[in-house]
Amino acid sequence: MSNKLTIGMFGFGVVGQGLYDIIKTKNLNLEIKKFVIKNADKKRTLPADLFSTDAETILADPEINTVVELIDDAEAAYKLTVRALKSGKNVVSANKKMIASHLEELVDIQHEYGTSLLYEGAVCGSIPIIRNLEEYYDNELLHSVSGIFNGSSNYILSKVFNENQQYADALKKAQELGFAETDPTLDVGGYDPKFKVCIVASHAYGIYVKPNDVFNIGIDKLGQQDIRFAKEKNLKIKLIPTAKEIDGNKVVLYVLPRLVGKESMLYNVENENNGVLVKAAFADEQFFYGKGAGGHPTGSAVLSDIAALRYGYRYEYKKHLESSALNYSQDYLLKVYLRYTDDQLIEKLNFSEITERYYAADFKYVIGSINLQQIAAHKADLDQEGNFIAEIA
Amino acid sequence: MSNKLTIGMFGFGVVGQGLYDIIKTKNLNLEIKKFVIKNADKKRTLPADLFSTDAETILADPEINTVVELIDDAEAAYKLTVRALKSGKNVVSANKKMIASHLEELVDIQHEYGTSLLYEGAVCGSIPIIRNLEEYYDNELLHSVSGIFNGSSNYILSKVFNENQQYADALKKAQELGFAETDPTLDVGGYDPKFKVCIVASHAYGIYVKPNDVFNIGIDKLGQQDIRFAKEKNLKIKLIPTAKEIDGNKVVLYVLPRLVGKESMLYNVENENNGVLVKAAFADEQFFYGKGAGGHPTGSAVLSDIAALRYGYRYEYKKHLESSALNYSQDYLLKVYLRYTDDQLIEKLNFSEITERYYAADFKYVIGSINLQQIAAHKADLDQEGNFIAEIA
Repeated sequence: MSNKLTIGMFGFGVVGQGLYDIIKTKNLNLEIKKFVIKNADKKRTLPADLFSTDAETILADPEINTVVELIDDAEAAYKLTVRALKSGKNVVSANKKMIASHLEELVDIQHEYGTSLLYEGAVCGSIPIIRNLEEYYDNELLHSVSGIFNGSSNYILSKVFNENQQYADALKKAQELGFAETDPTLDVGGYDPKFKVCIVASHAYGIYVKPNDVFNIGIDKLGQQDIRFAKEKNLKIKLIPTAKEIDGNKVVLYVLPRLVGKESMLYNVENENNGVLVKAAFADEQFFYGKGAGGHPTGSAVLSDIAALRYGYRYEYKKHLESSALNYSQDYLLKVYLRYTDDQLIEKLNFSEITERYYAADFKYVIGSINLQQIAAHKADLDQEGNFIAEIA
Repeated sequence: MSNKLTIGMFGFGVVGQGLYDIIKTKNLNLEIKKFVIKNADKKRTLPADLFSTDAETILADPEINTVVELIDDAEAAYKLTVRALKSGKNVVSANKKMIASHLEELVDIQHEYGTSLLYEGAVCGSIPIIRNLEEYYDNELLHSVSGIFNGSSNYILSKVFNENQQYADALKKAQELGFAETDPTLDVGGYDPKFKVCIVASHAYGIYVKPNDVFNIGIDKLGQQDIRFAKEKNLKIKLIPTAKEIDGNKVVLYVLPRLVGKESMLYNVENENNGVLVKAAFADEQFFYGKGAGGHPTGSAVLSDIAALRYGYRYEYKKHLESSALNYSQDYLLKVYLRYTDDQLIEKLNFSEITERYYAADFKYVIGSINLQQIAAHKADLDQEGNFIAEIA
């Protein structure tokens, strides 16, 4: 009943190797014919004739019907994904930046060429959130999808909060463990979770929003005062991307640190784990939890996509067909905590309401309501050392 | 692209009504043509000609291609499900007892007649665990699937643990809220979660085990001493069904109260919520959380099944085809806490090892290792007032 897959794989890093480890224990009616890698000189654990540095050995091989793309470089990944899809090959990718940046075009190409692009591994590692949004919540009105989408920054926050480690030490440890991207700004600056929430939004709400149009700010300016503030109130700080329907016709997307209390399922998501909260009109609150990073967890998601391709599986993007009424918006009032240095920042930000103000020699903060548009317009200021902003749930 | 569904629905209780509420807000290419109900005299919120007390108005109507079965009576549900499947109608059911008791036969009928039986709503309400086991973990080696599968007993445990309520009061409240079955033994005695874990086991491991062959004991003998014991150790007691692979060729199934610590995702599952823990070889630990009971949550799962039938969806029972090597077993060593009254019980139970013993005038317990076979052989003794057994994680 299943179609035999002949696979060409780009990349043989931690995910690729994890995947190969999984596949070799199975009888899956599939064969990996070729790996294309960047560095020919690196020692490999598999026979040399499986490897090539020439993309054409995969892209021009008519026998290869499935491309698995696991490389870092989003632009290179984009080019080879487009080429593969247009030449009748299905593609599995875990490259969130590539997918988020080009999603609308990639959906069009799938329709035009009748090929399938699957990318469960691109969002929250092992958690099957895309598949569930596609298949299970396809008729649900979703109030919001949010959560902990970035294992590396969550690992740092756990170490800083629970073990009183210094931010810089925790970041270094995350990098050593392989959780963090080569450029840590992608993680701790909230870019990686932004790519993921853009992908999620397309399956949850049927809208395609470019990552550049979405506000993100991260945890890299987190200070000891913020941690003390949170702990005194029995809260933790987590980095949370949010996709949320408002007013029945708009969807807001943003990435912000958030002060989270014990009553939230996200409070207990620690270290490199991810958690996705889905609030649905009828199913009510649902939560998915699992490893967000690492070769085997991400490899298992990629394998699940590969296995599904044997049965001709493709995303239907059903919500997009129904959702012409939904528009992306940044016009949304948020309650925030803001630690700041320069009083002028508060004036500039044009809070709708300030409900608390605190002054001390070395620590000033306000709590109040502010429009997301205001926050987005002043990202450069908020990103300055001495300022830290977090949403209050 | 989707097939028009003409639906006959058996039952119009809390789930049926919830479902109707959901469907009427959607444009789903489906029509509910007839409800068959037991009591003709009850006042209904919909036009009278939609209702009948005669099952034939659905089963003998060739226009009806989809049967949604939401009645309490498992034997009646079984008969009409078989009849519908054999006459070319697909069936959606939320009747865990019916499915668990007849699963192997129902799978055979589906294959023979080319019809589809879906039952996501039968297991953990809104949580899409069956779909994920079928579609997402189909190539994963699963170490175990366990969790909180019964909203009613979990509600009682939450009230007893967190609000110091009396067991009897909490049970009464659960019944008033509609979480508990008419016969509370099904919930608090661990039968309802047993039905569910049997269904889960078929999708996780491909084995069909009759509920009667699976050991269950519940929380109805829980006493103040047990609660104090747990609280002193910062543990909670939860009622946990477990399906677990052991020794690479056996699967054990059982339902037992368990002492659960803060490090477990199940620790924070409170009230009528459910949580499913999946431990997988490559994906690692995954957790699904959501409402386990109630008209809308369960209705949303049933709707998801109905919607999937429009696209010809059916469970493939893939693991069953691969799993001839797995056998059901009760030969498994458990670590347990046992409060007891009669010293002879301890002798009878034939512990493999006792590591702790405590005696007081009104409270005696042992902690030790014991084979599940021993526990199952002495269920009648363990069910006596004055005894309470719980697994230690």
